[in-house]
Parts: sequence; C-alpha cells; structure tokens
Amino acid sequence: MRTTIVGLGLIGGSLAKDLRRLNFATELTGVEINETHAQKAIEIGLVDSVKPLEEAIKDTDIVILAIPVDKELQILPSILDGISENTTVIDLGSTKKTIVDSVKGHSKRRNFIPAHPMSGTENSGPEAALENLFKGKITILCDHKDSGPQHLALVEKMFQSLGMDIAYMTADEQDHSTAFVSHLPHAAAYALANAVQSKEDGKIIFDLASGGFRSTVRLAKSSGEMWHPIFRQNRKYVVESLDVYIKHLQEFSDCLKSEDDDKLWELIENANKIRSILDGENPHLIKNEEKLVKLYTK
Amino acid sequence: MRTTIVGLGLIGGSLAKDLRRLNFATELTGVEINETHAQKAIEIGLVDSVKPLEEAIKDTDIVILAIPVDKELQILPSILDGISENTTVIDLGSTKKTIVDSVKGHSKRRNFIPAHPMSGTENSGPEAALENLFKGKITILCDHKDSGPQHLALVEKMFQSLGMDIAYMTADEQDHSTAFVSHLPHAAAYALANAVQSKEDGKIIFDLASGGFRSTVRLAKSSGEMWHPIFRQNRKYVVESLDVYIKHLQEFSDCLKSEDDDKLWELIENANKIRSILDGENPHLIKNEEKLVKLYTK
Repeated sequence: MRTTIVGLGLIGGSLAKDLRRLNFATELTGVEINETHAQKAIEIGLVDSVKPLEEAIKDTDIVILAIPVDKELQILPSILDGISENTTVIDLGSTKKTIVDSVKGHSKRRNFIPAHPMSGTENSGPEAALENLFKGKITILCDHKDSGPQHLALVEKMFQSLGMDIAYMTADEQDHSTAFVSHLPHAAAYALANAVQSKEDGKIIFDLASGGFRSTVRLAKSSGEMWHPIFRQNRKYVVESLDVYIKHLQEFSDCLKSEDDDKLWELIENANKIRSILDGENPHLIKNEEKLVKLYTK
Repeated sequence: MRTTIVGLGLIGGSLAKDLRRLNFATELTGVEINETHAQKAIEIGLVDSVKPLEEAIKDTDIVILAIPVDKELQILPSILDGISENTTVIDLGSTKKTIVDSVKGHSKRRNFIPAHPMSGTENSGPEAALENLFKGKITILCDHKDSGPQHLALVEKMFQSLGMDIAYMTADEQDHSTAFVSHLPHAAAYALANAVQSKEDGKIIFDLASGGFRSTVRLAKSSGEMWHPIFRQNRKYVVESLDVYIKHLQEFSDCLKSEDDDKLWELIENANKIRSILDGENPHLIKNEEKLVKLYTK
C-alpha cells in the first residue's frame, strides 16, 4: 500500500514504524516542513522519501495527517482537492468538529475519515517515535456515515492491524469526551506547573520534586505548537471541563477550611473508585449495553 | 543492627527489603496491627518476626515508624516512653510539624529524628513493597539540631545506604514545600477523578481513558487511610497550595473564555519550563547557592 504521512513527529513517526513493520505500508512517503525533522526521518529510516505536499498526495493510496490541528485546518481542503478519486485521507487530530466542518460539502468529503487515536507521549519530533505506541489503545472514528464504506474499511483495517479498538461517535461527542479525558488533564498539568513555579520558594520545591509530582505534572511538558490550537478549537468543552474541575477542587479546599473531615473522607473514597475503572474492572462496560452499542458498533 | 519497623505496608515493607539486603538490619522485627498484613509479611520474608509494639521496641537499636500520620501521633509519645536510653526512633510521615509538636519537651526527644523520604507509589500493603523504592530520591530531616548527634548520624547512615540524598529543613518548611510537591498533586488527582466521575456521560469518558488521563489521575488511587490524616495535619499549607492552583486554573479558563490566545500561549510556554527543571537541568541548583547551603548542609 502506497502510504503518505504528513508530519513526521511523534505520532506520524510512530505510525510509520508500525505500518512498515506490519506490511501495511509498502511504499512510505513523508511530508515534513521542518528540514531537520525531515533529514532525521530519512536518516533513521522512518520513510523512504520526503516530498513536497502536492507531489506526495498524488498517486498514493492513503494520506495520513499527523500535524497540529491548526495546520490540518489550513491544508485539509487542498489535500482533498489534490488527491485522485480513490485515495483515502485520514486525520489524527485531537479535535474533530472544526476539522469536519472545514470540509463539509467538499466533493471528496467521502474520501475523508476523521479519526483520533488516543495515544501519545509528552515528547515530540521523529526521534520521539515509538513502536507499538497505539497497541491496546482506543481510536475514535467520527461521523463515519459521511465517509465512503471502502475508505472506512481501509482505515478500520489499518487501526485494527495496529492493535487498536475502535469507537464510533459524532465529532461533537468526541470533542466533549476528549475534553474531559485528555484536554482537561493537559490543562490541569499546565496550571500545576505554573502554580508551583509561581511560588517564591520554588527553588526549594523543585529540588524536592517527588514521584507524585512528576507523574501529575508530566503532561505540562507537552508542546504549545500541538496543544494551543487544540484548546482553541475545543474551547467550549475545555472551558466546561475546567469549570467542573475547579468546582471539585474548590469543594476539596472548602472541606479543609471548614474542617469537614467526614466530607473530606467521602471525597477521597469516591476518587479511589477510579482505580477499578482504570484497572479494567469497568462496571460501565458490563452494565451499560446501550452505550456500548453506541460506542463499539456502527 | 536490631531493627524494628512499625507498619509493614508499602513504605515499611520496602524499607525492610532494602535494609536487610544492605546488611543494615541483621535482626528485623515488625509491628503490624492488620493480621492479614502481618501474616503476609512473615510469609514473604519481610521480617523475622512480628511482635506487639511494647515488646518490639524493647532491646532494639532503631525503631522506624511507617504508619499513617494520625497513628504516629497516637503512639509516638508512648514509644519514646518505652525505649531504652540508646534506641533511635525515626518516623517517615509526610507531615512533620504536628508530629514534632507532639513530643516537644519529652525527655527522650533527642532520640527522635523526624524524617520524610520523598518516595512512594499509589499502592499499599506488604505485597506492594518494592526493592530500591528510595534509591536516588531525597529524604528530608527536620529540626535536626533537636536530635542527638549519634541518633542523627545513624539515621543519615541508613538513608545514605539506601542511596538517598538528604535535605535539612525545619518541620514548618518541610510541611510548606511538601504541600506543593506532594499534597497538592494528590488533592488535584482526587478532584480530577471526582470531576470526571461526576459527568453524566462518564460511561463514555472512562472507556476512552487514555495515557494522559491515566498518569494525571494515578495518585487518586492512593488510600484515604494514609492521605486523610495528611491533609488534616497539613491543613493550612494544603489550602494555600490549592488556592494558588485554583487561581492558575481559573486564569487558564479565563484566557479560553476571553479568547486571549496570546496569553494562553504564554501560559503553556511557561508551564513547559517544568521539563528542564524536572529533567535535571535545574537552574536553581546551580545559581542559588544560598538555598543550596540551606538544603544540603547542616
């Protein structure tokens, strides 16, 4: 399969590694505006060649966009303009509604699959690329009825070969869910990093940064190039999630201030339930069949 | 060295493993009120025997308290009452001021070293015990001038043999710093877990829990038995840290609401600085020699 990956950073590079190893991609072409990244990608063998965008999207079977969501918005319509009738286009951005709206009514809209593989690290660039980054994770496919069945089938096959589970939802639903499970944790980490750095005695604090602090603040290392446009495109739902979070933090603080230690115990006990949810004994997965259908079937 | 560890959970158990391996402890006695934990600790060879507290603190060289801080408060005075003249007592709790105050003026106050090794995981119990849990981490020794030099030397030797760096500060300074680097991240994780669980469509959200969410919320699994008394004992500073954090989250949310995208970029860029701080290129460690002296010398 002739495969073109636009953007050879963490996500595009990791995908290149896996798709070649799995024999999904036989010919791998990259598009990368950062010269250093482009050279590095060739050097470490991520792709066979790096070409200009216009050239790379001609005569290829699948075009995969793995660039910041504001850049996607800029080039997605012209990519659909430039591909042949049978080429499949997929984007991997963290926001979906704005992207989908930008190609509404386009004559090749059915060639396009809006996707969001829920995987990543706080690092970026081709050297951050990892094998099996996607394995065992979930990918979201949005508004799948607006895509042609052949294109959808090809993309499903690709994600399944990567070992991913697939969830189907509308672009709006994905933006709402993702605000809570991904965008909010990033915003929370950025704010935590800023809060601790704002303390006058930060010098002491940093030297003591323990394991607990490290993991909670890890996402604050994530690049603004990727995350600034995500927050802007999903403004409404990120604000909603932040408001809910702040309310819960305020409740925690109020309990401490008013010495309501019983309530404080309840808050901790309720939070502890996240363990069984994250560790696989998810009661919702068993009980809520209606939601399951919505999530896991077409 | 005859060593008594009170509390055979994650911390006490991990310490037992290392102290035996390092030949620091030759005879290891445990105290554990949880029968199941006590049996498990014997079964997996963490300690040679489990004895009642009164018996275990007689004729021993060092008594190490590794129990929740509210339990420490209850038994520390009677432990000092019951030990012989030469026995060293050390506690490993996350809060220090309340503990230190509870034995102020005690005739054996100089036998006691208040310590806080900055290490742990979100798990608990003897089976959660890990080798090398403390290696490469920092331990805080508080108000060290109030302890006898022999006792201090023994405890320093113990932490150094575990591969830890030692920071010296007052109990009040430790409580303030620790509020920011440890207690706040825990409170933030608890609130994040509760915020996400409070969403009506939590069912969808959980199924999508991605890597980013997992690591940010990891600490929310930590037990209330340990953390509830920590928050209560360090109420003032935890509230201060929460207030600073909420202010930064509100600023982030306000930027989004008012579409102040330049300011949003600044917030992300500033948060990114945490990378170099956490990854060892700590500018403060080089520049601020005055603080260094305070932290790393006596």
